Amino acid sequence: MQQIWLSLLSGLCLRLVFYCSAEEGLEFPNFDGKDRVLDINERNYKKALKRYDLLCLFYHEPVPANKGLQKRFQMTELVLELTAQVLENKDIGFGMVDSQKDVKVARKLGLEEVGSLYVFKDDRVIEFDGELSADTLVEFLLDVLEDPVEMINNAMELRAFERMEEDIRLIGYFKGEDSYYKAFQEASERFQPYIKFFATFDKSVAKHLSLKMNEVNFYEPFMEEPAILPGRPLTEMDIVEFVNQHRRATLRKLRAENMFETWEDDMDGIHIVAFAEEEDPDGYEFLEILKDVARDNTNNPELSIVWIDPDDFPLLTTYWEKTFKLDLFRPQIGVVNVTDVSKSLTAPNVWLDMSNDEDLPTAEELEDWIEDVLSGRVNTEDDDESADDQENSDSYNTEDSDESHDDDDDDDSDD
Amino acid sequence: MQQIWLSLLSGLCLRLVFYCSAEEGLEFPNFDGKDRVLDINERNYKKALKRYDLLCLFYHEPVPANKGLQKRFQMTELVLELTAQVLENKDIGFGMVDSQKDVKVARKLGLEEVGSLYVFKDDRVIEFDGELSADTLVEFLLDVLEDPVEMINNAMELRAFERMEEDIRLIGYFKGEDSYYKAFQEASERFQPYIKFFATFDKSVAKHLSLKMNEVNFYEPFMEEPAILPGRPLTEMDIVEFVNQHRRATLRKLRAENMFETWEDDMDGIHIVAFAEEEDPDGYEFLEILKDVARDNTNNPELSIVWIDPDDFPLLTTYWEKTFKLDLFRPQIGVVNVTDVSKSLTAPNVWLDMSNDEDLPTAEELEDWIEDVLSGRVNTEDDDESADDQENSDSYNTEDSDESHDDDDDDDSDD
Repeated sequence: MQQIWLSLLSGLCLRLVFYCSAEEGLEFPNFDGKDRVLDINERNYKKALKRYDLLCLFYHEPVPANKGLQKRFQMTELVLELTAQVLENKDIGFGMVDSQKDVKVARKLGLEEVGSLYVFKDDRVIEFDGELSADTLVEFLLDVLEDPVEMINNAMELRAFERMEEDIRLIGYFKGEDSYYKAFQEASERFQPYIKFFATFDKSVAKHLSLKMNEVNFYEPFMEEPAILPGRPLTEMDIVEFVNQHRRATLRKLRAENMFETWEDDMDGIHIVAFAEEEDPDGYEFLEILKDVARDNTNNPELSIVWIDPDDFPLLTTYWEKTFKLDLFRPQIGVVNVTDVSKSLTAPNVWLDMSNDEDLPTAEELEDWIEDVLSGRVNTEDDDESADDQENSDSYNTEDSDESHDDDDDDDSDD
Repeated sequence: MQQIWLSLLSGLCLRLVFYCSAEEGLEFPNFDGKDRVLDINERNYKKALKRYDLLCLFYHEPVPANKGLQKRFQMTELVLELTAQVLENKDIGFGMVDSQKDVKVARKLGLEEVGSLYVFKDDRVIEFDGELSADTLVEFLLDVLEDPVEMINNAMELRAFERMEEDIRLIGYFKGEDSYYKAFQEASERFQPYIKFFATFDKSVAKHLSLKMNEVNFYEPFMEEPAILPGRPLTEMDIVEFVNQHRRATLRKLRAENMFETWEDDMDGIHIVAFAEEEDPDGYEFLEILKDVARDNTNNPELSIVWIDPDDFPLLTTYWEKTFKLDLFRPQIGVVNVTDVSKSLTAPNVWLDMSNDEDLPTAEELEDWIEDVLSGRVNTEDDDESADDQENSDSYNTEDSDESHDDDDDDDSDD
């Protein structure tokens, strides 16, 4: 039994359990024992939808017969209970939907992925496919409660907007809360909170961003120049379609709130994964090189690099080090085959050897390597037959493949 | 019993418990049931100290007789067990020291604060007085394992260094790994990982920072110009003393890894607390104003503002909203009396009313208010007799106290 509890301790905070009164002002919540999570069924789901501003439904497999698995299931409920308690003043309902018992309800509500949490807000459904921990979930739901469009009113707020280079962002310039703004707002609700929408009614802010009236700019993460959405004024569907077409960025950061969704969205079965700690000078330098590579290749739909900052996932860091045989105190980049896991317990993977050099590779060297990955010259197959516990998969060497790559594409001059 | 488990669920990740094999590459660790945490006593503590690169000892109250409290105690052990497992390749030992049974060992090892975790590294002891969760602890210990001095070798790494404005940082320019560098390194070990030490052997990096040979600069968080440590070359003790004198910053960010230590370090029983979400345009703007205020008052030893980014503490956000009767979707600043908690369950607190304005206060207005706090014109006493569940403590109004504050101190022109 101990094992079950232990597997669940990731972000657990205990200190305050001992010393509650000592730290007035910093008390982590204790569950009060009150049941708040509903057992959703055909009789009560409509009422629940009506009653709350937000309704969060966890779509789960039937409760298992096995006692150990039952405990795990209870723990999921408890995460939801604690989340519900913490957010109890926010008018959010919580419920569980059984994929077998409540199959009709699930169909009516459009629940599809078992293990996902679905958030109903007005007429929209938002899927949460991230780390199911109370803190990630609370943060996510607080984001969902905010207005989907954030206003940019002055130069300082504009600076805040310009700093958010990790996020997909849209910004529109409107006269006021007219029908064009409303269309933008409706579109924003479809992507909240994953994609950030901003608007300004201020002429000088618009001028700074070179935005014409009723125009909308789309910022891909880490890109210096935005893309301008074609046509204006834009309808809700114009915006929705554009975002759907462009939402997989050339360089995307892995985040707890949608980590599994990102991981499932692989590129033909592989991920190019880069580990870089932004707070570390080495990691920062490598990340800047990655950004250069992404900027040079922003028009290549074949390329999407997943950037993982190990600082964001402390409990996974040593797991990655073990699984991929890496030193994550240093930046790393490699290819992980996420579909080919049947052959061994570990997803096949191969990493760029950067251990011999004092210096990190240049953007050009990295681009050559990525080209080799995309063309299949570097792949995880080579390594596949050798044992899993082999020392290091750094057999690949940039020198070997220093062929001329003169097929530079000239179509990346977007402005 | 359920209550006990529930109180511990803060950052808990469950999704992977259900769907382990589905997400190859993102598997959160499950405890393997192996005991790794030692019961430290007089017979084994010396051996433990010798055996590991790092030894982490949790100094705790005697195991309680009460069954519920016992469970809580076991949970603490389990956090340590999971941390030990996750870091098992890193040569770190873990142990528990009972403040009653092991009083002699505790005295010999210099353990003082019950509820703290002490990390022994070489001849140093590092106290961890932060959120006792597995992820915070793992991240902290990985930081302790890194070299205490980080080298800055080129312009890109220098940019990384310059971006870290939230941290206390020192940087020294040395010829190489000579005795002066060694003194700097020895000093760094005393503050690792709370205060960051950097060094460069590179002339152009030093020139960019206006560093002379064997000179050390001290960067207070959010300040534009560093202080130069007096004298050079510097001994270890010169550096240690300077850091100890200057380590309480005018504006300091609350962090999970030392949140209780920061909170205990109040200013005559009060904290000036500012809530601002850096990712939010409003929050960013307010934070920039705060930085201006901090820069203007960097030489005032009476002033230290604790900045809390609600995004860093999702589980505490609604607790703060309730306790202090605030809306944390907006930036806030107030005074919390942390010693005067006996009179009521809630620490007395009073907040600057910013709700009526579209605009945030200017740096000048904020400075006036802070002056009123420091002079006692704004204090938590006024509010004290009124009931806890009173609507809002925004009775204070900047207008009322718009007296002339012509005692501007001229000594803040440091350059």
